[in-house]
Amino acid sequence: MKVLHTADWHIGKKLYEYDLYAEQVAAFEQIRQIARQKKVDAVVIAGDLYDRSVPSEEAVSVLKQMLVKLNIEDQLPLLAISGNHDSARRLGVGDEWFEHNQYFLKTELGIDAKGRRTLEPVELGNCQFFLVPYFNPKASRTYFEDDNISTMAQAMAKVVAECESYFKPGLAHILVGHCFVAGSSHEDSEVSSTVGGLDEVPASLFKNFDYVALGHLHNHQALSADNARYAGSPVKFSLSELTNQKGVYIYDTETNDREFVPLKDPTPMVSLTGSLDELCQPAKYNEVADQAFVFVNLTDRQVIANLVEKLRACYPRLVHIERQNGLEGIVQTPSVELLKEANSPLKMTAAFFEQTQGLTLSAAQRDYLAQLLAEIEEE
Amino acid sequence: MKVLHTADWHIGKKLYEYDLYAEQVAAFEQIRQIARQKKVDAVVIAGDLYDRSVPSEEAVSVLKQMLVKLNIEDQLPLLAISGNHDSARRLGVGDEWFEHNQYFLKTELGIDAKGRRTLEPVELGNCQFFLVPYFNPKASRTYFEDDNISTMAQAMAKVVAECESYFKPGLAHILVGHCFVAGSSHEDSEVSSTVGGLDEVPASLFKNFDYVALGHLHNHQALSADNARYAGSPVKFSLSELTNQKGVYIYDTETNDREFVPLKDPTPMVSLTGSLDELCQPAKYNEVADQAFVFVNLTDRQVIANLVEKLRACYPRLVHIERQNGLEGIVQTPSVELLKEANSPLKMTAAFFEQTQGLTLSAAQRDYLAQLLAEIEEE
Repeated sequence: MKVLHTADWHIGKKLYEYDLYAEQVAAFEQIRQIARQKKVDAVVIAGDLYDRSVPSEEAVSVLKQMLVKLNIEDQLPLLAISGNHDSARRLGVGDEWFEHNQYFLKTELGIDAKGRRTLEPVELGNCQFFLVPYFNPKASRTYFEDDNISTMAQAMAKVVAECESYFKPGLAHILVGHCFVAGSSHEDSEVSSTVGGLDEVPASLFKNFDYVALGHLHNHQALSADNARYAGSPVKFSLSELTNQKGVYIYDTETNDREFVPLKDPTPMVSLTGSLDELCQPAKYNEVADQAFVFVNLTDRQVIANLVEKLRACYPRLVHIERQNGLEGIVQTPSVELLKEANSPLKMTAAFFEQTQGLTLSAAQRDYLAQLLAEIEEE
Repeated sequence: MKVLHTADWHIGKKLYEYDLYAEQVAAFEQIRQIARQKKVDAVVIAGDLYDRSVPSEEAVSVLKQMLVKLNIEDQLPLLAISGNHDSARRLGVGDEWFEHNQYFLKTELGIDAKGRRTLEPVELGNCQFFLVPYFNPKASRTYFEDDNISTMAQAMAKVVAECESYFKPGLAHILVGHCFVAGSSHEDSEVSSTVGGLDEVPASLFKNFDYVALGHLHNHQALSADNARYAGSPVKFSLSELTNQKGVYIYDTETNDREFVPLKDPTPMVSLTGSLDELCQPAKYNEVADQAFVFVNLTDRQVIANLVEKLRACYPRLVHIERQNGLEGIVQTPSVELLKEANSPLKMTAAFFEQTQGLTLSAAQRDYLAQLLAEIEEE
């Protein structure tokens, strides 16, 4: 049996102000093609299907189209779990009905309407799939009726023990999980992962599985273990992933081979360093595709009027500007202590404004900001 | 064939600060029992399953449990549409999979993954069900490829014409819709219905259907038409529904009978008038059940310290207090013009505070309010 392993789709994610739907749909269409070419028997999605617990209507619609295409049009069995970015309850809304079409989705540790425990495996072909949604160690106490669980390692040891109790000999055993395995390296875009400490799970826990299809980390090389892989995200979500090769894994239960199949970058991502003058030379900007996402590391130190407009004239999808050498005449080191104390976005922004501009927000500015923040939260 | 017709569940709705989940679940369990006792063959839910376009996780979970029970445990075919309170995209997230278990859900006018138009009927038993989700007349222009549609009556005439084009003789024709039919009476809790004018649909449009199962208005007596009924909400959502009898309709396609089956009030709702002294007499409050929702119409005019606490000691689920005779010494008529000008909840609350208290919000109060509003919006 051949299994395609992907994860961390984060539908709805933005790269600064840019929507990534076009990139996500393009990557998805490549994944579909790979599934067809490699004649896979099932597709595993190891969590973080959405980028936010309350996805926008557009994100809901885009993800649904993808799942309809894979599962209903292409008739591919799907095995999916929720990640830490998904709301288990929102993602799991149709799960009781999905199985009729071999779409198996697990979002919470618990007992379903048919009296089955979450960790009872799904059997497909010669394979037992153990679908372990992202969970909070404390939430696992109810499932295991054990109040002593406090770390993810303890909880995962319980999870693995229950999974192994269902092992049938002669079948391949695949665990699908969304967690941080100790010793993995991480990226800037994995904003919500608590790296190190209480959330770490030792790789050795999973030693009895033939394959561990992981989600959570966005680089497919984040972990080097004999039997476990992070699929990585199909799209680059931050500058730190600039040189990251995106792709999917194909695991073959007959041969125990795992093959990494790369995805083409739908949109190039570029980081440029130089002064405004240098960057605005035609020889420089003509080398960069118009649709490329561009990060600029500016060497100039002076305040430049209409800087963004000037750079955008050369690089239409300018994403972000860093001042490599800082800015003249501006306080460079906002007090971290003060930022820590601020406990609301409103206070934090006000504090930042005061520290960088040396000015206090006016009542009108404060009102406008509060309204803006309320609108953002509402979204 | 016997069809149970319900609508306007509004899962997640609150009565002032009180959640209504317990009442909604209790009403649902009665509906389930009625379905069993009357041996119905299908259940129609005519829109507004949720109360908000972005339902809370709890609302998502409660509605899902209800649908799982009816459709998966009781094996009852479900025919449902979205209403104006639902987000079509959010509610419709699993619709492509639901049909496997005879759960038919339509949320948008359009063409589905199988190439079918929304208005193609669902055939069950001796019946054609036409599921017409709530829609915006402008949105229907794409579906009908007709840019001249501007009112709901025009759009609905097109809808009906398309439905009738699929009519098979010898079968019963049931339309399930969520709209305001001209001549209906309305309630306070139907906050988002634009009553009268552009949103009205003449009842005569539906004359060729055997039964029109409507949702939108919360009183089952809102419309008197030969072949059309509003099911009404299963739970009382406002004081104006105090004497409203809640229930469901059972439509029998063989006999063309429609029977209204009442639901018991899970929680009494009471309106009391009197002075604080009168209302706090044991003879008075002992007549009211502890769990009753109580609206108080207070005859006192003076400011009373700890008024809410005093009334709650006698009526634990006090919902709302009106001052029948107004309040002494307080500006009674905040300028409507000023309130209209205020274009944010923050400004509006600040203006209200200024007009009633004669004081301006301090910076700290303003901060706290902004934070609070942001939290509310986030919910």
